[in-house]
Order: sequence, then C-alpha cells, then structure tokens
Amino acid sequence: MPATHFADRLVERIDATRSLLVVGLDPELGQLPPELLDGVDDLASAAAAAARFCRGVIDGVADVAPAVKPQSAFFEAFGAAGLHALEEVTAHARAAGLLVIEDAKRGDIGSTMAAYAAAALGRVRIGDRELPVHDADAVTLSPYLGPESLQPMLDVADAHGKGLFVLVRTSNPGSARVQGLQTPDGRVFEQVARLLDELGAKRRGRGGYANVGAVAGLTYPDDARALRALMPRTFLLVPGLGPQGGAPEDFPLFVNDDGLGAVPAASRAVAGGWREQAGGDAEQRVRDGARAAALSLTEQLRGPLARAGKWRW
Amino acid sequence: MPATHFADRLVERIDATRSLLVVGLDPELGQLPPELLDGVDDLASAAAAAARFCRGVIDGVADVAPAVKPQSAFFEAFGAAGLHALEEVTAHARAAGLLVIEDAKRGDIGSTMAAYAAAALGRVRIGDRELPVHDADAVTLSPYLGPESLQPMLDVADAHGKGLFVLVRTSNPGSARVQGLQTPDGRVFEQVARLLDELGAKRRGRGGYANVGAVAGLTYPDDARALRALMPRTFLLVPGLGPQGGAPEDFPLFVNDDGLGAVPAASRAVAGGWREQAGGDAEQRVRDGARAAALSLTEQLRGPLARAGKWRW
Repeated sequence: MPATHFADRLVERIDATRSLLVVGLDPELGQLPPELLDGVDDLASAAAAAARFCRGVIDGVADVAPAVKPQSAFFEAFGAAGLHALEEVTAHARAAGLLVIEDAKRGDIGSTMAAYAAAALGRVRIGDRELPVHDADAVTLSPYLGPESLQPMLDVADAHGKGLFVLVRTSNPGSARVQGLQTPDGRVFEQVARLLDELGAKRRGRGGYANVGAVAGLTYPDDARALRALMPRTFLLVPGLGPQGGAPEDFPLFVNDDGLGAVPAASRAVAGGWREQAGGDAEQRVRDGARAAALSLTEQLRGPLARAGKWRW
Repeated sequence: MPATHFADRLVERIDATRSLLVVGLDPELGQLPPELLDGVDDLASAAAAAARFCRGVIDGVADVAPAVKPQSAFFEAFGAAGLHALEEVTAHARAAGLLVIEDAKRGDIGSTMAAYAAAALGRVRIGDRELPVHDADAVTLSPYLGPESLQPMLDVADAHGKGLFVLVRTSNPGSARVQGLQTPDGRVFEQVARLLDELGAKRRGRGGYANVGAVAGLTYPDDARALRALMPRTFLLVPGLGPQGGAPEDFPLFVNDDGLGAVPAASRAVAGGWREQAGGDAEQRVRDGARAAALSLTEQLRGPLARAGKWRW
C-alpha cells in the first residue's frame, strides 16, 4: 500500500529515484526549441506548445527526479488555454509517477482560500459531485495574511494526503524589505518559520516529516542553520541553484543528517538541457536534455552532500 | 480624451456614479439563485452559471458603482472553464464602463511576476503579436517577497494606464501574526505602507493619486489614521463592510478630505441582493437586487461621510 501522507510519498520518491531534485516547469516561449514554436500564433497554440515542451521534460526526468514544479504564472499567461495546459501537464506528470508541486504562491482567507485549496489539491463540489481540478500533490503559498490563510489549504492537504510549501525566506535580495525585518523575536521570516513548525507538529507522517513545508532560498546559506533549527521536521523547498547564484556547496546546510528535509528546485538548468543536445527531433532533445541535466545536477549535489555525511545512499 | 492614468480613471468613474463602492464578484455556487444551477453538473456548466450570475450583477451596478472586483479563486475553482468565465466577465464589465480590479493577490519575482503582469493587466507576446489576456484595470498583490515582486507589475501598470492594490493590513484577526509584528520602525504593515508610498510618489495622476494602491481592512479602524498618514496619495481598497464586521461609521477614517483616497469593497452584500427580490426571473432578480443593494450601501456610507465633511457631491 503506498504511503498516503505527502511527506512519506515524497521520501518514497526520493529513495526510488536516488535524487532530491525538484524540476521546475517554466514554459516561457523563449525557453522552447524553435521547432516547437512553428505555427504558434495565438494563446491556444502557445499553450499547446508549452504543454508539449513540459511533457518532454517530464518524460525525461520521470525516473531520475522525485517531483516537478510547474510555475502557474507561465501557464496563466496563456489564459484559459494555459490553465488547460497546466491541468494536462499535471496529469501527465502524475501518471509518470512524479509528484507535482504547483508553484502558485496563493494566499487569501476563508472561503476564498478554500476555493484555491479545492482547485489545487482537493475536489470542487458541483451539486452532489466532487470533482478534481488540478489535483496537484502540493502547492506553494504566501503567508502574509497569517495562519487563516494557511488553514483551508491544510484542511484539504490533510484530507487528501497532499502538502504545502509556504514562503519563508525567498532567494531575492529585496526579500529583506519585508521578510527580513527585525522583530523582538527574530526576523519576520523566523516568526513564519515558527508558525510553520507549530502547524506541522501535528501533521507528521511515518517518516517524521510534516506535510507543511517551507520555501527557503539557497542564496541565503547563512540563514540555513537558523531555519533548520526552527523547523527540524519541515521539508524545505530550496530554489536558487544556478542562474540565481546559489552554490551546490551550500545545499547541505539545508539538509538534515538523514539526508532528507530539503529538496533543491531547478528550472532552466534542467528544462533548458535541450540546448546541449545535438541530434534528434525537438521532443527527443527536450527529453534527453532534461534527463542529462537532472542527472548532472544530482551528481553536482552528491559530492557536497557526501562530504557533509548527508548523502543518503 | 479619457484620462489614461488608473487613479484618474477611478476618480472619473467615482464622480460619474457618485459612488465609491467596489462590487466584489465571488461566484460561489451556493451564492447563486437556484434557477441558475439547473443542469449544472460539471466544471464547464458551473463556470457558465457563474459567468451568467456575474453578468447580471454587472448589469445591475454598471451605473451606480465605479468598479467590480472579481475574485480569481472562485473562477479558478472551475479550472480552465473558470478562467474562460473570468475573461468573459472582465470583458463584460469593461464594456459596461466599469473598472475591473482582479482580486488575485499574486506575488512572485522576475520573469514569473512579469508573466502574471502581462496576463492580468498587459499583453502577452506570441511571436510578433502582443495579445491581451485578462486586460483588467488593476490587480491585487501580496508584498511578502518585497519590492522585486511589485516592480514587474508596476512596469506594466505604468505602460498601460493600469493600477495595483497591495495587501497592507488585511481584515482577518490572524493578520497580526505576520503583518502586525513590531519592528524598530513600526509594525510590518506600516513598513509596507512606506514602501508603497515611495513607489507611488513618482506615479501620480493629474488628480494627485498614485496608481499604486493598498488593501486595508475596515475591521481595523484604529490603524486608519496611521495608514492614511503614511500613504496620503494612495487609494485604499477597504474590504470588511458587512459580514466581516466592519462598520460604515468607521469608513470615513480611511477617506481623505477631498472625499477620495479610499473605496469600500463589498461582495455578498451586493451580489446577494437577489434574495430580497420577489418577482421576475432569476437574471432580473440578480440585476435588480445588486442595483438596489449597491444603492443602499452607498446611502449607508453617505451619512457618516457627510458628517465627517467628506461627502464629495
């Protein structure tokens, strides 16, 4: 019987693929091989090209990465057709065995947040039917509105074996302006970290990790120790590898001694792997390029993790 | 020639309708007259019913309220079909002369935020075409990621005469947990208010108001004076009237002496007006009920505003 708790499912996938890598799906048109843009001249054809590109990346990484992270904005940019593409890509990834972390950074309260939760992770009630919409495995959230903005998503996550990753310490320099403000009990993001640890305490799976995760940028390694201490049983989603300036050597700071507790996210570094592929048609280059890039990133992380005694296999 | 700056367009609409009211469009199925739910049994038919309901509300309030505020979550709940409904409702409202404030509370950085901005307010580039997607007049945002999360939306707003409303002090009790934290220079939300005032200083229209607005809940009237002082030329979008416990008597605290600078938002109190209508078919009840409720709310605000010397007409 498969584990139904989100964190247990994540750990299962991590062990099955021997990788921690979360592959971002950011289908900006400029990131696609030119052949996939042939005939693209409206929102519907753009959305179809984006979906085709993402399916290629998914097929390439399905057995070498535990999860993908579609960025909702790049689908929403194509309007209703883009949402259709997001639904299709999410279903394709789940069918391939990947976990899907929808990067939507939603945040609202009450029935509004419940509507986001039903759409992203749960079921929407239409008459006496309960219908899945995105049916992702987890979603990213923003904590600015406080605990009430997380609760409706937690309720749905608990009921359906899903998870959430809440913004704590993001990778951009300007994050200092709100998250980094000093309060009597630490900086704002440390207070958010405490809140997440509280919420996660009663929500741990068999492996000890909570279904409430946090987003913490690799570009702030100095804060990794504090965040890890404040949220020992929280999975950290760690963007910032590569183009944003985060170094693989810093990643082990975010990881627990069991080799778990943090997953790095990389988007262009994987999905752009097709640029390094010489032969074959576009779809094959996307697939092979993503696979090669994912394996290479996992390998780049292996050394630092092994030296820190945190390579799990 | 119509004013192209968002704040000027808003003031024009306010004066044309002699009302400050922003009418929320929250088409949860439970809020619709039962007749509109006949035959609704999947996401597509639910989205169509939601759109029909919103069109009725729009037709009812078009000449008695300056703007509508569709809540993205209630459209997203119906998947791609819901996004299609949101696009349709937005176009219907703009054609009726209403300004459309898309309540999406987005927040991300870099090219991701640029994609949200292009979809919500601007144009999306497909090959050599620039296509509108939602083409709303303004959008709500979350500031947790700092100034970089606002800049791409500001760029698009500046270029297209659009606006934004950033969460500052929300109406829910738990907002204290993040927004209300004390820092050496005031609470977190006061720091966000300062940031918005800075960003707005170079972005004022002919009437002196910026295209950078703020969301501040009516349920915290004690903070109104501080917020007003920190952001004198910022339009405040003020939810919380009615069901959330905000009192019309407190609204003038948010308003400047020119009778401008704040707009109250009400959703169910207007869109649920059909419940007070006896005869006619469902669409007529929705239209007439919304109109009557909007006029009644404006009237309820008139007394307190007039007593404070802030009734503009």
